[in-house]
Amino acid sequence: MHAPELADVVAAADPDALADWLHHRALPADRSHALARLPRAALRALAGFAATDDTVELLDSVDDELAARLLRAAVPADSVRLVDALDSDRGADLLRELDEDTRGRILTGLPAERAAALRALLSWPVDSAAAHMVPETLTVSPGATAAEAIDTVRTRASDLRTDARTGAYIFIVESDGRLAGVVGFRDLVLAAPATPVATLMDTQVRTVAALDDAEDAARALDAYDLVAVPVVDERGRLLGIVTEDDAADIAAEEATEDAERQGGSAPLEVPYLRASPLLLWRKRIVWLLLLFAAEAYTGTVLRHFADEMEAVVALAFFIPLLIGTGGNTGTQITTTLVRAMATGQVRLRDVPAVLVKELSTGAMIALTMALAAVIRAWTLGVGPEITVTVALTVVAIVLWSALISSVLPPLLKKIRVDPALVSGPMISTIVDGTGLIIYFMIAHATLSQLQGL
Amino acid sequence: MHAPELADVVAAADPDALADWLHHRALPADRSHALARLPRAALRALAGFAATDDTVELLDSVDDELAARLLRAAVPADSVRLVDALDSDRGADLLRELDEDTRGRILTGLPAERAAALRALLSWPVDSAAAHMVPETLTVSPGATAAEAIDTVRTRASDLRTDARTGAYIFIVESDGRLAGVVGFRDLVLAAPATPVATLMDTQVRTVAALDDAEDAARALDAYDLVAVPVVDERGRLLGIVTEDDAADIAAEEATEDAERQGGSAPLEVPYLRASPLLLWRKRIVWLLLLFAAEAYTGTVLRHFADEMEAVVALAFFIPLLIGTGGNTGTQITTTLVRAMATGQVRLRDVPAVLVKELSTGAMIALTMALAAVIRAWTLGVGPEITVTVALTVVAIVLWSALISSVLPPLLKKIRVDPALVSGPMISTIVDGTGLIIYFMIAHATLSQLQGL
Repeated sequence: MHAPELADVVAAADPDALADWLHHRALPADRSHALARLPRAALRALAGFAATDDTVELLDSVDDELAARLLRAAVPADSVRLVDALDSDRGADLLRELDEDTRGRILTGLPAERAAALRALLSWPVDSAAAHMVPETLTVSPGATAAEAIDTVRTRASDLRTDARTGAYIFIVESDGRLAGVVGFRDLVLAAPATPVATLMDTQVRTVAALDDAEDAARALDAYDLVAVPVVDERGRLLGIVTEDDAADIAAEEATEDAERQGGSAPLEVPYLRASPLLLWRKRIVWLLLLFAAEAYTGTVLRHFADEMEAVVALAFFIPLLIGTGGNTGTQITTTLVRAMATGQVRLRDVPAVLVKELSTGAMIALTMALAAVIRAWTLGVGPEITVTVALTVVAIVLWSALISSVLPPLLKKIRVDPALVSGPMISTIVDGTGLIIYFMIAHATLSQLQGL
Repeated sequence: MHAPELADVVAAADPDALADWLHHRALPADRSHALARLPRAALRALAGFAATDDTVELLDSVDDELAARLLRAAVPADSVRLVDALDSDRGADLLRELDEDTRGRILTGLPAERAAALRALLSWPVDSAAAHMVPETLTVSPGATAAEAIDTVRTRASDLRTDARTGAYIFIVESDGRLAGVVGFRDLVLAAPATPVATLMDTQVRTVAALDDAEDAARALDAYDLVAVPVVDERGRLLGIVTEDDAADIAAEEATEDAERQGGSAPLEVPYLRASPLLLWRKRIVWLLLLFAAEAYTGTVLRHFADEMEAVVALAFFIPLLIGTGGNTGTQITTTLVRAMATGQVRLRDVPAVLVKELSTGAMIALTMALAAVIRAWTLGVGPEITVTVALTVVAIVLWSALISSVLPPLLKKIRVDPALVSGPMISTIVDGTGLIIYFMIAHATLSQLQGL
């Protein structure tokens, strides 16, 4: 049977057809694709007739901006109902995408307790661990027994948004809110009912601070191999948890932003397919113009050496090859290094080791490429003097590029700028101008025709 | 109190000191750093005196290659004991790193059932979902009640390597091994004891096939928001599960490999800090030489246009600027596009939309950059004719680069090659040579001095 189109499902206003459609379109990309093409009126209708669970599943599987569009299109009662049904962290994410009026209207429509929880989440800085947490946690006091703890969980589970992640750990919290320990739900169930939770709990709890970077929380989850990591305030009081699925999203988003920066463009912040040409232009043109301005310097260098090029026009033949090789060598290093720094493999104290490694590698690469340059110069038939100039320049440019590329990312990190800013295009641009100066200086020293200039 | 050094802990042969050290060095990077510097004899000693749990924690938090080094250094009895204590999927990963002899010796030393499970894992292709699965799952028959299911879990939990992820789902399996449904551990516990699991279970189970790419399994976990996804054979029989932590590792590894490819180098496959200069040289030199060979073509182009450059040496001033701008424009596009394809946001059927988007954006960028080029040519004082040539060339090169960069990644995908191969350096190289041809063709058409040539 062929699966129906989303537009047809909406036109028929059939809740069951939507459930069926969701089952057939399991991948987020398919769902986003279909949802993005619905006009506003259809989005409004969809929010009205569909079962809350199905709409929530749909909202959960598409990106924030697209989900927010559905909330914006819905009649107020529907958007309130949907936000109420979402996980708190997801709800807060979507409210952040809305204009202040719409957000205020939805918050006012929600039950007071729920609105307060969402307002609290919205008050945290958007990149903080606390902004990404689920505030609803399963907690018991240190005096409880395993049986009592299970009962608490059982009673609270109906009004608590729990799943395999938020329900994996039960936190033991003192009367003042401080986190005392954690016990796995399985351990609780498998223990003898009368066992005090205090004897079951692990008191060495790994936590993250509320204002820590969300990325640090994601890394902590990965490093400690946890399903959820508790977020605490400065007094050690439990505020919520960051779960593994959020950590995966945070890590994926970070990797995407880094990739975009590495390509010499500002992060898009919306999914590529829904970025308009105007947005793409804005995100790209700043770096292009900066790089153009920096690269423009090469014109000044070349004009300065115009006499040399007129005397030995063959020198010009090698310009793209030499600066291209320098740029390639540097790009290889920065992309590897920036990624190693993003994943926490390389830290500032490793910089000496990185330099030794890169300069040794650079020396080997320089010699290999010099050999290739000799072969190329020979096939172009430019004579032994220019061949020597080109070979020496390759060695110098490769080493120079290796030095710049291994030093710049840690340097940015040191001054608390994201090392991912050091893009391939940036390295190429730096190496282009300086590489040309190196080239003509070496030419001056080695070419007899240039001795008088 | 200052935390001790790992070398001192090993010298003292104190198991408690190791536990303490692990607590103080929670981050994998710190542990790897220390472990990597231990000589073979110290590794052997460490595997001998330390508590199995602590050594397993250490092995779990460092990368495969480093963990395998410890197994290789240990006396046979220790390495067998350690592999026996590891999760099966982790154990298989480490055995893969060992030479055939060591691997065979360890497998022979293990209990028969355990060895068989590991051999089964090792038999799957290394990039398949099945190679990354945990084969031990919690299963019950469809006839069981909730109470019986919990009892089964309780009994099996002692001899089963379970944690919050492997224990999150209980699978309902028919007598012939086929997967009938799944029930969450929490739902099981919170249900009335006499409820048949068949009424609790969800029969719409998302599964992955054993031979699916591991990356597909990771994406499925993310897309369906699961803690673990079951792996089934071609008859629908349950073989094991891929858990969320493995999925995070698979996704992170993929992002690293893509970043390295995008930088114009082959993936390192070992952590950067432990890659030797010789390895780095090998991974980088192939692409450098290929790009050099491709770029060498620019020399031929320039020699072909040597007369033009001698007649109007100012043409040479703009060479790095023009080809640099073309390379930058293309690099911005490919990095964004390759990442969007890697995360599944852009698929082959989206290619027409991508082309429209990129050519519209390219047109806007071309006009902006042409304006910048006019300003630059004016400041270099090269006269109106060359200014026009440069401005027209910028427009042509930017559009040409946008076309190449938006077409190449999908084209590779179409012929089933990883689009991440289209690196910034590759685009720059392609645009350098072709851009120069465009430049001199436009110069010929616009410059009166070149009419006779």
